[in-house]
Amino acid sequence: MINVVILGTGNVAKHLLDVFMTHDGIKVVQVYGRNQKALSVFGKFVPTTSEISKIILADIYIMAVSDDAIVEIASRLDLKEGLLVHTSGSIPMKSLPKKNRRGIFYPLQTFTVGRTVDFKEIPICIEAENDQDYGLLKQLASIISNKVVGMDSKQRKSLHLAAVMANNFTNHMYFLSNEFCEQKGIPFDLLHPLIKETAHKIQDLAPYEAQTGPARRNDKGTLKKHLAQLKNKNHKELYRLLSKSIRKTYGKKL
Amino acid sequence: MINVVILGTGNVAKHLLDVFMTHDGIKVVQVYGRNQKALSVFGKFVPTTSEISKIILADIYIMAVSDDAIVEIASRLDLKEGLLVHTSGSIPMKSLPKKNRRGIFYPLQTFTVGRTVDFKEIPICIEAENDQDYGLLKQLASIISNKVVGMDSKQRKSLHLAAVMANNFTNHMYFLSNEFCEQKGIPFDLLHPLIKETAHKIQDLAPYEAQTGPARRNDKGTLKKHLAQLKNKNHKELYRLLSKSIRKTYGKKL
Repeated sequence: MINVVILGTGNVAKHLLDVFMTHDGIKVVQVYGRNQKALSVFGKFVPTTSEISKIILADIYIMAVSDDAIVEIASRLDLKEGLLVHTSGSIPMKSLPKKNRRGIFYPLQTFTVGRTVDFKEIPICIEAENDQDYGLLKQLASIISNKVVGMDSKQRKSLHLAAVMANNFTNHMYFLSNEFCEQKGIPFDLLHPLIKETAHKIQDLAPYEAQTGPARRNDKGTLKKHLAQLKNKNHKELYRLLSKSIRKTYGKKL
Repeated sequence: MINVVILGTGNVAKHLLDVFMTHDGIKVVQVYGRNQKALSVFGKFVPTTSEISKIILADIYIMAVSDDAIVEIASRLDLKEGLLVHTSGSIPMKSLPKKNRRGIFYPLQTFTVGRTVDFKEIPICIEAENDQDYGLLKQLASIISNKVVGMDSKQRKSLHLAAVMANNFTNHMYFLSNEFCEQKGIPFDLLHPLIKETAHKIQDLAPYEAQTGPARRNDKGTLKKHLAQLKNKNHKELYRLLSKSIRKTYGKKL
């Protein structure tokens, strides 16, 4: 049985509590949070505290707080023993206080309130300063996920940037498309099946191969007509730059 | 029973043949194509011809050829009767010859060789010059899809542009992310579950609400660190512009 304290009451904390509670090998012995209202939701299921001095003994302390808060909260902790990890993609392990046994427990997923995700599929990237702690993290991660990956802070930082491109920028494309549809009185949900298929396609096919559209074909007529249709400056600029980038990608290899 | 001739032997033609063959109410009486090798694949299932003068009588002639070829092939057709439609998102109905009964049969999806798609979910946008032809197209489309939408050429042109943003540009984001992963020695498939979840999320949540990441939070520290990590000029330029566009989107409403 691995005893865990979760530090934080946000989205990631809630998803971790939910998945930990469904597995016998893990016991969440406490949740710490400063926000009383958020904490009360956790209090329905496990012991909670809003006082840092009342944090109890555990095998692993998982910080699921915003990137900005990690260093500050970690510095105020006074852990007698146990392994301290955080869940951020971009903060190095060495940002945690030296006095602690340190590690990383980074689930690579976008977490949304009210949406259940299948943790079995989610890669969990782990890192630790010594083999024993690495083994402990691997044990914990393997209970909830089939994809546990050892990764140092430098690689994790790169992975986080790749995730921003594949997730945040992609979602912004959906937003721009949605905004344009609204301007033209077209229901955006017509595009839902297309969006799903595009995301599924690259599970089998490299994105390089999966690319379609006027820029890939260098269909100058359509590119010109599309640019003429766009009145919003932001849409125009992004259309131009992304089409240029696609043309360059395929131009090279023609 | 609706008799159909398919003109073209590409990806869309193949997917249409596949789905038409699975429904009793539709009979593909012939496929026309100039490419003998491609045509022979169709010949295993239905009659084919590579001579335009040998195209037989049908209720509907569906052109599934590249945008550039539509006008040229249509002009060479000598149809005694029947409804002539094309499957393109961006070519107006009026580009088809005046002497024909004209219409549009535009399935909004990205078709890939070897990937089966569920047509029931795919929106099919139809247009015709008169009510009777519209009714015929609606009948045909309703056999294969649960989402049949009447739409004029102007709206379809806008929808096609929205699809380019939501599909082609999104796939290019996947490509850029993949390219960056390769440079850093990170397996791109770690990002697959994230990519799927991002696409699924917006089926329930508007992309405006679903947005996460450093640009949305205006986390200047991370944005700066990410830009420093990117060596590729193209990656840098797109990262900067997309982050700016996201910041503008959320800045406005703060």
